[in-house]
Amino acid sequence: MLAARLIDNIWATRKADSLKGLKFMLAEIIGGSDNGQRLIVIDNIGAGIGDRVIISTGSAARKILDNDNIPIDAAVVGIIDEDCNFG
Amino acid sequence: MLAARLIDNIWATRKADSLKGLKFMLAEIIGGSDNGQRLIVIDNIGAGIGDRVIISTGSAARKILDNDNIPIDAAVVGIIDEDCNFG
Amino acid sequence: MLAARLIDNIWATRKADSLKGLKFMLAEIIGGSDNGQRLIVIDNIGAGIGDRVIISTGSAARKILDNDNIPIDAAVVGIIDEDCNFG
Amino acid sequence: MLAARLIDNIWATRKADSLKGLKFMLAEIIGGSDNGQRLIVIDNIGAGIGDRVIISTGSAARKILDNDNIPIDAAVVGIIDEDCNFG
Amino acid sequence: MLAARLIDNIWATRKADSLKGLKFMLAEIIGGSDNGQRLIVIDNIGAGIGDRVIISTGSAARKILDNDNIPIDAAVVGIIDEDCNFG
Repeated sequence: MLAARLIDNIWATRKADSLKGLKFMLAEIIGGSDNGQRLIVIDNIGAGIGDRVIISTGSAARKILDNDNIPIDAAVVGIIDEDCNFG
Repeated sequence: MLAARLIDNIWATRKADSLKGLKFMLAEIIGGSDNGQRLIVIDNIGAGIGDRVIISTGSAARKILDNDNIPIDAAVVGIIDEDCNFG
Repeated sequence: MLAARLIDNIWATRKADSLKGLKFMLAEIIGGSDNGQRLIVIDNIGAGIGDRVIISTGSAARKILDNDNIPIDAAVVGIIDEDCNFG
Repeated sequence: MLAARLIDNIWATRKADSLKGLKFMLAEIIGGSDNGQRLIVIDNIGAGIGDRVIISTGSAARKILDNDNIPIDAAVVGIIDEDCNFG
Repeated sequence: MLAARLIDNIWATRKADSLKGLKFMLAEIIGGSDNGQRLIVIDNIGAGIGDRVIISTGSAARKILDNDNIPIDAAVVGIIDEDCNFG
């Protein structure tokens, strides 16, 4: 999984039907040599801009939804505790 | 998912039979440390050159088609709103 | 698989229900040109901070759990012997 | 998918039984910030050295064969038209 | 697939039960812009240190075993002929 910070919302009115209702956010990897790499993730656990989160990628991301047929490859799976200083 | 801009069409007359009829485009990642990385994607939601799009990769890309046996690993799944300024 | 060193714990009180009870750790790749790259992994074989470990990523990571529906994409699958000098 | 040029053949007499009869080639990514990255691909659509091709990676690559149990992760799925100038 | 050279053995006495009996080796990518990147692979076709090999990654790696539930993501699938000069 990746440690990242949510830095913005992504709005896409036109999208695949199966993605309707999902919340898209822009995440930026924090720490390590991939620091600053960005990806778009879906969030369904209530994370917000500024939160440091755990992101799962690939087929793992779809496991957070009840439907394996949604075309997503990255999702927030956890919110890192504010008092957790790591790395 | 990746935030990218569609920058060109890709034409391949000779290709796997299962890819016949699909539209291939060249996308370039925008923002973050992967800025400028390029990949070929399929589009079936009506995106065009110049559009900023959301791209799903890996097995997720095949979910946008009705058939899981098509050998693609990247697809446009959404078109980012023109007035969406992110990052 | 990746050779990495476990460098810290990651605490995330708010997370997907299916992740409750799993232990998250921060790993840093050792050696090669990816040296210093970081990722979050789960550990269920008793590894600790400072250990050099073997990490499996992608769908392989879920094979270490009894349930293929957990949204994880990286897991410790082995602890490298202390007297193993490689590379 | 990746845009790449086929630059050589790869010969491996000793290999997994399920790979017998497959043609292996060396491909080099063209364009973008991954320009020059190399990977080994299988080709079963008649591509040759010098051709610019579309390469699918991951589980998608296996979809070009009739058998999902072949251990390959990259395959030529299309040959880019000679008069297609992109990027 | 990746072209790599096997450069060492990796010993891990403590590991997931399903990995018992598998041979782990350290591989280093040769050629291209990923030259020098390292990963741990399993070998069950008799490769040795110094051999140049073809490595399959991701779910493809598991296809070389008879069991899809082993948590590995990289395996030697072929040994490049000694007289094969490529790239």
